Amino acid sequence: MKTVVLVGGVGGAKLALGLAHVLPPDDLTIVVNTADDTWMYGLRVCPDLDTIMYTLSGLVDPQNGWGIAGDTTKLLEAMRRYGEDVWFKLGDQDFATHILRTRWLNAGHRLTSITERLAKRLSIPQCILPMVDLPVATIVDTVEHGEIDFQTYFVRYRWQPTVKSLRLDGIEKASISPELQQAVESADCLLVAPSNPWLSVAPILSIPGLRDLMLSRPIPRVAISPIVGGQAIKGPAAKLMTELGLEVSARSVVAYYGDIINGFVYDQVDHEIEVPLVHSTRLNTVMLTDNDKVQLATNVLEWMKSWAKTPS
Amino acid sequence: MKTVVLVGGVGGAKLALGLAHVLPPDDLTIVVNTADDTWMYGLRVCPDLDTIMYTLSGLVDPQNGWGIAGDTTKLLEAMRRYGEDVWFKLGDQDFATHILRTRWLNAGHRLTSITERLAKRLSIPQCILPMVDLPVATIVDTVEHGEIDFQTYFVRYRWQPTVKSLRLDGIEKASISPELQQAVESADCLLVAPSNPWLSVAPILSIPGLRDLMLSRPIPRVAISPIVGGQAIKGPAAKLMTELGLEVSARSVVAYYGDIINGFVYDQVDHEIEVPLVHSTRLNTVMLTDNDKVQLATNVLEWMKSWAKTPS
Repeated sequence: MKTVVLVGGVGGAKLALGLAHVLPPDDLTIVVNTADDTWMYGLRVCPDLDTIMYTLSGLVDPQNGWGIAGDTTKLLEAMRRYGEDVWFKLGDQDFATHILRTRWLNAGHRLTSITERLAKRLSIPQCILPMVDLPVATIVDTVEHGEIDFQTYFVRYRWQPTVKSLRLDGIEKASISPELQQAVESADCLLVAPSNPWLSVAPILSIPGLRDLMLSRPIPRVAISPIVGGQAIKGPAAKLMTELGLEVSARSVVAYYGDIINGFVYDQVDHEIEVPLVHSTRLNTVMLTDNDKVQLATNVLEWMKSWAKTPS
Repeated sequence: MKTVVLVGGVGGAKLALGLAHVLPPDDLTIVVNTADDTWMYGLRVCPDLDTIMYTLSGLVDPQNGWGIAGDTTKLLEAMRRYGEDVWFKLGDQDFATHILRTRWLNAGHRLTSITERLAKRLSIPQCILPMVDLPVATIVDTVEHGEIDFQTYFVRYRWQPTVKSLRLDGIEKASISPELQQAVESADCLLVAPSNPWLSVAPILSIPGLRDLMLSRPIPRVAISPIVGGQAIKGPAAKLMTELGLEVSARSVVAYYGDIINGFVYDQVDHEIEVPLVHSTRLNTVMLTDNDKVQLATNVLEWMKSWAKTPS
């Protein structure tokens, strides 16, 4: 079952790892949010791409769910000695990724080919695609600081500022890459990981033309709820929903995705949700162990197969 | 006594450190070879500038005489994991220097201002000047490999290839920076450190106009011999001299510098050298301890003072 999954960072990486255990490598394409990407010290840092890459290669720090296990921060300490304002944690091994990526970007390569190259060199057999080749940046309009870039909001201010609205800088110039086009066109199902819908998935869905391309596919298009029992598993999703005036529930997620999805997975702790016009199911969606990840991937794939030939 | 000293890497750094102990900070300008500079992973690495900077800031690895004491190589290990051909040692802390420098170069700053900025941030009060702002590269023509860049010759092949000749790529576009012009014009003496004359000092002296500018100054212009007792203290100087058909002796160094110098310091182990038309003296030039460095700096400065008003 050729699967395309849209993901953000840590939450998405868990599902991606589960899927990678279950599917033949050629059947899995992971489309990654790049609107969190940033420049640090002149280097291009792609936090979500790296989280996916480090997770699938087994390098990831199991505690944080991002970064490389056992990584040190000597380079950053030297930056601090140079008087640099060091607030974004980058490990010494991690820097190698950013340095190689930046060198290749400066040499004119596309982020898609660079990502493929890095993943290959880490022996990752699945296909990891950045959502776009050109830079797109989530800009967060906050009550306290006005407009700030995503990492300033997320890391520097630990997502404490109150969000008024979000916009995507550069999205009008973004376009579907040939690789993404091909992946969606040949997919047997499209999954939306339990990543933050507004911060991680919205940028992907905002690529001009992608919504229509997804809608044109008569296949299961399933989102897994990141809201479980009225709370976010991790990160600012619940806080953000409140600030955006939304009910913190899986229902709001279904409403947000609208007709993009025709199937929805919510957690077993949640009450039955009325999901108009879409298939839905209750599963354990909380992925604490590797077994949870594999189990969720297996269950979702099997459930989709059960109705794949009769999508609503 | 306003002193301008021309230096390469490790040997030059020793003398620079001695001079820094003896002279008021404002009276010392260190002009550094940049023809060894190279691009590594898209980052600009300036080995001699860094050696001087790390030495004067006290960060330097006392064993090697270059790099930062206690530095680790986790980033390089990650590069190796990515399949990169890792042959040029760069420490994790060291990388911070190259990343900042590259960022500022890419932002359009001159190497001279970047070097000043880095040195200031390490609280170095002396003036460190790169010999030029634009890239100049020593190209080594070898019997075994044909033309190779300096670091390939020096580090990758550990200066084992047989040198046929040397040339400086980009030297015709190089020009004296305003800061270098000003330093030489206001100097009370010009020193040439016991660095490799052909590999470290020649590039500096090859900057169009610098020879004439130096010759125009009626002040002590003194070189310290890097050849002691027919041997190089460190590095390929003696081997290179043989390959270039020169006698391995302080005499060859005097001959090479010609009228650029009007004073010469050679080591006490050497026999009296006939130095036509220039002042000369025998001193302990081997700098093993910090005290040796301070002593040599003191002795050279005092000796120059003794004849400064009657240069030949």
